[in-house]
Amino acid sequence: MNHMREQAIGVFDSGVGGLTVLKELIKTLPQEQFIYIGDTARVPYGTRSKEVIVRFARELAQFLLRKNVKCMVVACNTVSATCMQDLAQLVPVPLLGVIIPSVERIIATTKSKHVAVIGTPATIASNAYQQALQARMPEITIYAKACPLFVPITEEGLEQSDIARLTARHYLSDIPATVDTVHLGCTHYPLLTDAIKQVVGNKHIIDSAQPTAEAVRRMLEEQSLLVTRNTHTPNQLYMTDLSDRLKNIAVHFLGDADCDYQRAMI
Amino acid sequence: MNHMREQAIGVFDSGVGGLTVLKELIKTLPQEQFIYIGDTARVPYGTRSKEVIVRFARELAQFLLRKNVKCMVVACNTVSATCMQDLAQLVPVPLLGVIIPSVERIIATTKSKHVAVIGTPATIASNAYQQALQARMPEITIYAKACPLFVPITEEGLEQSDIARLTARHYLSDIPATVDTVHLGCTHYPLLTDAIKQVVGNKHIIDSAQPTAEAVRRMLEEQSLLVTRNTHTPNQLYMTDLSDRLKNIAVHFLGDADCDYQRAMI
Repeated sequence: MNHMREQAIGVFDSGVGGLTVLKELIKTLPQEQFIYIGDTARVPYGTRSKEVIVRFARELAQFLLRKNVKCMVVACNTVSATCMQDLAQLVPVPLLGVIIPSVERIIATTKSKHVAVIGTPATIASNAYQQALQARMPEITIYAKACPLFVPITEEGLEQSDIARLTARHYLSDIPATVDTVHLGCTHYPLLTDAIKQVVGNKHIIDSAQPTAEAVRRMLEEQSLLVTRNTHTPNQLYMTDLSDRLKNIAVHFLGDADCDYQRAMI
Repeated sequence: MNHMREQAIGVFDSGVGGLTVLKELIKTLPQEQFIYIGDTARVPYGTRSKEVIVRFARELAQFLLRKNVKCMVVACNTVSATCMQDLAQLVPVPLLGVIIPSVERIIATTKSKHVAVIGTPATIASNAYQQALQARMPEITIYAKACPLFVPITEEGLEQSDIARLTARHYLSDIPATVDTVHLGCTHYPLLTDAIKQVVGNKHIIDSAQPTAEAVRRMLEEQSLLVTRNTHTPNQLYMTDLSDRLKNIAVHFLGDADCDYQRAMI
């Protein structure tokens, strides 16, 4: 009756960071097939203007729509923070971003009601996190900070270096002691958890991957879109630039999950 | 007789770094009109694969050809190192990159015949500098090093920070004492000259801007393409993403040079 439910779940990101979300999705929904596209030819998005981010995000969404996905997950904080309304006009299937699931996790975690949200310049400038948090918890105090060098540092594999620690200190040393929860509002940042913890000390560090995967599972259940047949179709990983280096990063993120890697022209 | 000579000179770059080359060109050839395009929507190029860099570079060249430029200057080291042969097939007007003029300057500068060339991963991996240097000075010893974090550090305006100094030490501390000439093989790197000098000490630091501008002037003379009329047409600056931040960076690079700023869709 509902053959849509046998279709794949589409996931997109500006690059490879969204693979942290895909990994949680595969763990949470092991029967589902996923089609992921990362725009590695044009990453990073977080330092670009909203107009450009919207244009690129629409191209990624159109790519996934051509694959007949049954729903679409925006695994990128920058796109989720800046483009959800534009994408909703384009995408006729259920569409989920990372902001709302993350915000619910932040609200459920904080006791002091003083929280920090860190992300790309575009995410922080959009005020998407700040508005969604305040709408749910008007008395909350939010410390929001853009950390533009964190993405290139993780892309260079320098997470455990003195450069990472010094950069974390540069961005985060003035987070107030009253803050009890730090949200990593960019899918790259979990790789920097050690360096971040050294600066912020003993606080809850949360990220978008697990709450987003949980929200996708809930939505599929509610809309009767969970797959019924288990065909073991391999997941498909598309990247707009696919070098050996990027493939290694993807394998490092995903472990031995069964995936086909392909280059996509969009 | 030769009305081509009254046309503008096309200059392109992956972003704003090439404005250091444009500035020297304006200084060296003040009567000429320049049309510059920087691919700020897709910068950086230096960490991408050759296939993607070639595709983007061809789009920029086609944009300038539609403007009827009389010659084309590739102001980007990464594109000059990886795409000159591909571009030569496409571009019917004289085409100049930054590598050969830079190599001639390096050869003219070194006494010890031990030199360092630093650049993006794509530039260093291409071996373009190494091959051109060895062809002209077979006994030369070349220390080549990719410095991928230098571009994001300058784009964040952190050139004078501890992060810049630590990163320079990370990349450059093992340059041998015998090296007497360090070539900054990326148009962003001149902004980091202070941090680089603190690590490499008392060596000649050279870059691509001035030798390239001089090579363009020589080529225009030789091919009778110098402008004869001085119409004071403003230079045109196109960027594929044009935010206030990018415009400020451009003004900072170029000073009060007479320029029209526009967004280009390519």
